[in-house]
Amino acid sequence: MPIYNAPAKDIQFVLHDLLKVSEQDIAGYEDLDRDFTSAVIEEAGKIASDVLAPLNQVGDTEGCVLENGVVRTPTGFKAAFDQVREGGWTAMDCDPDYGGQGLPYIMSMAALEPSVSANMAFNMYQGLTHGAYSAIHVHGSDEQKQKYLPKMVTCEWTGTMNLTEPHCGTDLGLMRTKAVPNGDGTYKISGQKIFISAGDHDMADNIIHLVLAKIPGGPDGIKGVSLFIVPKIKINEDGSLGDRNGVSVGKIEEKMGIHGNSTCVMNYDEAEGVLLGEEHKGMRAMFVMMNEARLGVGLQGYAQAEAAYQNAVFYANDRLQGRAVTGAENPDGPADPLIVHPDIRRILMDQKSFVEGARAFTMWGANLIDRSHKNGDAEADGLVSLMTPVIKGFLTDKGFEYAVAAQQVYGGHGYIEEWGMSQFARDARIAMIYEGANGVQALDLVGRKLAQDGGKHVMAFFEMIKTFIKENDGNEALKADFLEPLKAASKDLQAAGMYFMQNGMKNPNNALSGSYDFMHMMGHVCLGLMWARMGKAAMKALDAGASDKAFYETKIATGRYYMARQLPATAMHLARINTGADTVMALDADQF
Amino acid sequence: MPIYNAPAKDIQFVLHDLLKVSEQDIAGYEDLDRDFTSAVIEEAGKIASDVLAPLNQVGDTEGCVLENGVVRTPTGFKAAFDQVREGGWTAMDCDPDYGGQGLPYIMSMAALEPSVSANMAFNMYQGLTHGAYSAIHVHGSDEQKQKYLPKMVTCEWTGTMNLTEPHCGTDLGLMRTKAVPNGDGTYKISGQKIFISAGDHDMADNIIHLVLAKIPGGPDGIKGVSLFIVPKIKINEDGSLGDRNGVSVGKIEEKMGIHGNSTCVMNYDEAEGVLLGEEHKGMRAMFVMMNEARLGVGLQGYAQAEAAYQNAVFYANDRLQGRAVTGAENPDGPADPLIVHPDIRRILMDQKSFVEGARAFTMWGANLIDRSHKNGDAEADGLVSLMTPVIKGFLTDKGFEYAVAAQQVYGGHGYIEEWGMSQFARDARIAMIYEGANGVQALDLVGRKLAQDGGKHVMAFFEMIKTFIKENDGNEALKADFLEPLKAASKDLQAAGMYFMQNGMKNPNNALSGSYDFMHMMGHVCLGLMWARMGKAAMKALDAGASDKAFYETKIATGRYYMARQLPATAMHLARINTGADTVMALDADQF
Repeated sequence: MPIYNAPAKDIQFVLHDLLKVSEQDIAGYEDLDRDFTSAVIEEAGKIASDVLAPLNQVGDTEGCVLENGVVRTPTGFKAAFDQVREGGWTAMDCDPDYGGQGLPYIMSMAALEPSVSANMAFNMYQGLTHGAYSAIHVHGSDEQKQKYLPKMVTCEWTGTMNLTEPHCGTDLGLMRTKAVPNGDGTYKISGQKIFISAGDHDMADNIIHLVLAKIPGGPDGIKGVSLFIVPKIKINEDGSLGDRNGVSVGKIEEKMGIHGNSTCVMNYDEAEGVLLGEEHKGMRAMFVMMNEARLGVGLQGYAQAEAAYQNAVFYANDRLQGRAVTGAENPDGPADPLIVHPDIRRILMDQKSFVEGARAFTMWGANLIDRSHKNGDAEADGLVSLMTPVIKGFLTDKGFEYAVAAQQVYGGHGYIEEWGMSQFARDARIAMIYEGANGVQALDLVGRKLAQDGGKHVMAFFEMIKTFIKENDGNEALKADFLEPLKAASKDLQAAGMYFMQNGMKNPNNALSGSYDFMHMMGHVCLGLMWARMGKAAMKALDAGASDKAFYETKIATGRYYMARQLPATAMHLARINTGADTVMALDADQF
Repeated sequence: MPIYNAPAKDIQFVLHDLLKVSEQDIAGYEDLDRDFTSAVIEEAGKIASDVLAPLNQVGDTEGCVLENGVVRTPTGFKAAFDQVREGGWTAMDCDPDYGGQGLPYIMSMAALEPSVSANMAFNMYQGLTHGAYSAIHVHGSDEQKQKYLPKMVTCEWTGTMNLTEPHCGTDLGLMRTKAVPNGDGTYKISGQKIFISAGDHDMADNIIHLVLAKIPGGPDGIKGVSLFIVPKIKINEDGSLGDRNGVSVGKIEEKMGIHGNSTCVMNYDEAEGVLLGEEHKGMRAMFVMMNEARLGVGLQGYAQAEAAYQNAVFYANDRLQGRAVTGAENPDGPADPLIVHPDIRRILMDQKSFVEGARAFTMWGANLIDRSHKNGDAEADGLVSLMTPVIKGFLTDKGFEYAVAAQQVYGGHGYIEEWGMSQFARDARIAMIYEGANGVQALDLVGRKLAQDGGKHVMAFFEMIKTFIKENDGNEALKADFLEPLKAASKDLQAAGMYFMQNGMKNPNNALSGSYDFMHMMGHVCLGLMWARMGKAAMKALDAGASDKAFYETKIATGRYYMARQLPATAMHLARINTGADTVMALDADQF
């Protein structure tokens, strides 16, 4: 069985050495001192290692089963979900008015990582519920909030997002699901939704479906889409559960991975629902869920890479094969461990330097969300809105890539299901697709976010890098290994932005043909910035005589690797972008 | 169900426009005129589309089952195997002395591609047999050849390769399987072998296992390894089948993909075997199989990408989603097809330009093998020996990458097994691992092949590029789009080679840390060379007034894409290589 241990020290490093959370002027952050966050992460790590990780392969092997209209989750999932619920893990950043603990979002994200690493499919039941909670919390009436939120905070009732239909995913304007008003404030919802994660299961008393549908007579396309709350079981006036609603599971999809999560075809047959938010403003309400979900999916990307990495390291130390080219390192054994080989090191360093950079990037994003929500900081809001597609797209692409790389360390055993490495890759694969396929993230970044508010957020980002480099100009320890590569990468990114401005006007395809490369480029620059800051923070800790010297030295060496070996990718992306649309769009459709 | 149509025109283009096979002075090539190869490829395509492709998902879903010691293959496999056998497809390039058709190797490779695209797992039964055939053909005694080959040529008896043991794969010197001489020229083979593809099944009368084992008292490590022929069922003097040998299937492995192939744990319990080739020279005999197998695995890489690409193109034309940013292209429909979007084009062009370049590269490799074997051309032999790890490593990495990219075109449906795109990715994944994991290929390339015969083969490769560029210097149509990018990429590759020479002496890790990047770099340069040649060939055909103008124009446009969008990767690989071992090897094993 694969191993998993929560990287508590690394998470603490991001919260305290890098972000210095307890010194930030955000409500609730004053409580996030080292001891408190350490205790929370330790507990989160325990439940992840002891309860969730052992169920990961069980979930993959058994999958979810639809029997007589009821979905049965894998052995042990229900008991584990009870434990998660009872531990209060579903309520961390929820509103205390509805039973939540009111902790900052960053704390819930930091505590979430271990459970996503340990069992991504399991964690989704809670993750989807949190998204639905947020949408109701922001857009619901007081009555709706009173009715649904307390039970959703505890996951006694779980939630879902219903967007996709068989013929439309990205282009939701084409949707056919209808919501016919009953005249009493309720609607009859009819239609079919597909790919509904956690669509049905046996771990909660009720399931609150948030369903996008069109009210007949409304505007065409995406402007006529509204969002509805459709409970699986109707709720009586006194809050008790009533009759079954017209919601049923058509089937459970057979997927490449995340078998432990029930991905359902949901049939709505005159199901009773109520409007959430305003008529025809469903996309706005849904986007509350989607932005949060996208940050969470980015976390899935690196969290799966982290779990895969830990196992790759274990195997690389355990498996004896070949001899170090520079002389035997285990002369008394029949061979040296794999980890002596430079190409195995390359894989492990790629993974390690990515995961640690990605964690910092995601936590910084969560920090910006807290700053935006709690302090009403428009700049933080603009910045995180710019970063969201990068966090989602770049971190899930790379997360999958490094889960695949971990298989490679195992050689043939990486392909055998028993060892668990295939599952990390298969599970991680979905994160590149759902919550907006990564190509859509790239389109969002280049087609919308770059120019948002007159391009002010991307300018602020460049300014932030420039300032950091300038401020640390005299820091010789940082200069060659961190500041110079960051400067070069940032220059590449700016040149790409310039290319888009100069050529995208003439023909928008010149920009869109480079959107994916730009997303990756920006991901590298963001991780480069994170590493430069982490390098500085680690050096500072060493200068201050930190007791755990090896930890900080490792951090610096890992950062150096990222800057030397990963950041040069920006030049390649720029070269591709600079060729514009000509070769990309050269063929007619029938020439393929 | 996924579609598949053999790309007959593209294969013909490589054979005739690019390689001009029928004009080459190699025995048997004179028969390879356009009509003949076209007829063969058309028939191969038919059996692939009509018989093998429909069984691909069946094989994936049913898998192979071990029942009472007997392996049952998926429904339909046996009948299909009979059809393949009866069509003579297993005998194409085999020796006519043993019932083969004696066609050049390149012809068998060209005809192989469709069946590998259509059903990779199925094709492996035949592929392994061919490898075993080759080893016996080269190293067997006359008696052995007479005894085994005629039945193996027809696949009445299939073959296997038994190398890996639970504790060793790459490092075969550690192997424990023993071969104790019986004194009568036979040996008792005992031990356990794992990951044995086509290890057992119900489609052949007998299975001829080639097994690596150690004769007690022989040299330690890899120098004491011998190769044995161990039939599943013993063969009587008169050639009829006798008693069961001491060979049994321990279990069938549960794998990520290629479920249609039975990957077995094989137990040898005093099984009777005979030596193939010389005592303690087993690796030499086995390498005959492995080099051929590596070219075949490279073909698997691009053949899976081809199948995935065809489906991605189909879906991109079929699925309506969103509108072209430059104005609706399907104004009467509810939305435009996916193929209008630049980022979808990017994926399709990446796939198309890779697959066509990879096909040319692999066929060129097969051409060199024919030249080496039939003409005894040492230069061709040296060149293909240099190229083999690149064909295997680069083409399987990229093949998997583009199978994954095809899933992405399908969005959520790419993750659902029913659509078949997940299978292409899962099946393609193994090709990066078996027949020497790709890291081992990179090590072979940089640690052995570059310096082989005093570096003469890599110098010849650089010279070949230089000559091509010089010869076509006046060709303005070719210059900017093909020659200049090729020149730049080749310069990067030479610079990397120079870095290895200058720094690898001091510390071999400086070279080995960049081995994987070098393998990819060289792959790009090889495909760049192929594309420059194909671009020239297509222009020539157009100048000569070829009737199929659109085909040749498409070829040129696809090549331009590769040169503009893919070749710039060489600069990134060079930048990584130039950082040497410092950051790669910086950490102690316990710092991970």
